[in-house]
Amino acid sequence: MIKELITRNRSYRRFDETVKISSDQITKWIDLARLSASGRNAQPLKYAIVTKAEMCAKIFSFLGWAGYLTNWKGPAEGERPVAYVAVIKDLNIAENHYCDDGIAMQSILLGAVEDGFGGCMIGSVNKAKVAKLLGLNEKQELLYIIALGKPVEKVVIDEAKDGNIKYWRDENGVHHVPKRPIDEIVVFKD
Amino acid sequence: MIKELITRNRSYRRFDETVKISSDQITKWIDLARLSASGRNAQPLKYAIVTKAEMCAKIFSFLGWAGYLTNWKGPAEGERPVAYVAVIKDLNIAENHYCDDGIAMQSILLGAVEDGFGGCMIGSVNKAKVAKLLGLNEKQELLYIIALGKPVEKVVIDEAKDGNIKYWRDENGVHHVPKRPIDEIVVFKD
Repeated sequence: MIKELITRNRSYRRFDETVKISSDQITKWIDLARLSASGRNAQPLKYAIVTKAEMCAKIFSFLGWAGYLTNWKGPAEGERPVAYVAVIKDLNIAENHYCDDGIAMQSILLGAVEDGFGGCMIGSVNKAKVAKLLGLNEKQELLYIIALGKPVEKVVIDEAKDGNIKYWRDENGVHHVPKRPIDEIVVFKD
Repeated sequence: MIKELITRNRSYRRFDETVKISSDQITKWIDLARLSASGRNAQPLKYAIVTKAEMCAKIFSFLGWAGYLTNWKGPAEGERPVAYVAVIKDLNIAENHYCDDGIAMQSILLGAVEDGFGGCMIGSVNKAKVAKLLGLNEKQELLYIIALGKPVEKVVIDEAKDGNIKYWRDENGVHHVPKRPIDEIVVFKD
């Protein structure tokens, strides 16, 4: 059931760092993105897979975490991502990637969740530093980083009240994500 | 298996127009988008559901179809979409919707495919005309239209050769979509 999978596919930011993920496994998730829709079928997105501990540590240092949790500087040692996927636009193929990034990342994360892993799409990235680390050229534009691992946090969906959509953590470390009710987001129905 | 669902989720452009879809069913698919990730969890996307024949005919007249099939003006009568979802950005909530549109549309279409339907994300839209038809205000920006129905065409994935990614139809009406091989899209692996 896709609903069950989508519901389980939360933005996870804390992981069991002892559980590794191979680049072969991640390649299978990227294959799901490959099989997904692409604007004009141009397929300008490329991917970099990072799984080695030293590289992961470097990538980690270039990321911003959970903007609304102002007192939280990101996952502590032992709970950090064990792998990353960099989502890159190949400007030699297309300037406009439409919404391919969202389609692709959703497919990748659904694959990860089905296999018992999870992750988080991160837009707060020091893109110049990551691009340099990965050896990207000027025609390879870094769009997003997906952090991956075996989640160790509980994430629950609440109903947003009065438009307050900031996620928060309760005293037990449970991460709450308020989602707008369906009646608020369907604005026309004939 | 998410791979099976993603593989079945092709961009379908020909439908059995005798098979209708209720707005309640479409609302369930939109709920999958509601439960999906959103940049900063802002959730600026709103949705309009169109299922009535007269409205569908109007929407249809405002769409462009399958740019690479230059001799094809879109689905003939009897094979047109029976419903549409308009994906709208609420500018009162956010100016930047990140890649929420791709995430949301992927979730919606995976729901549709699981239920035996299918569709196509369409960016070639006379947005001013559709906005007027739906009564959108100046703070509601139309992003995409998803066409929906019971697919009657066969779509197959081929491997793109020499970077040729234009989809095409063979003499039996089978729609071929060349996808770049995985080795071409994974540009870094440590």
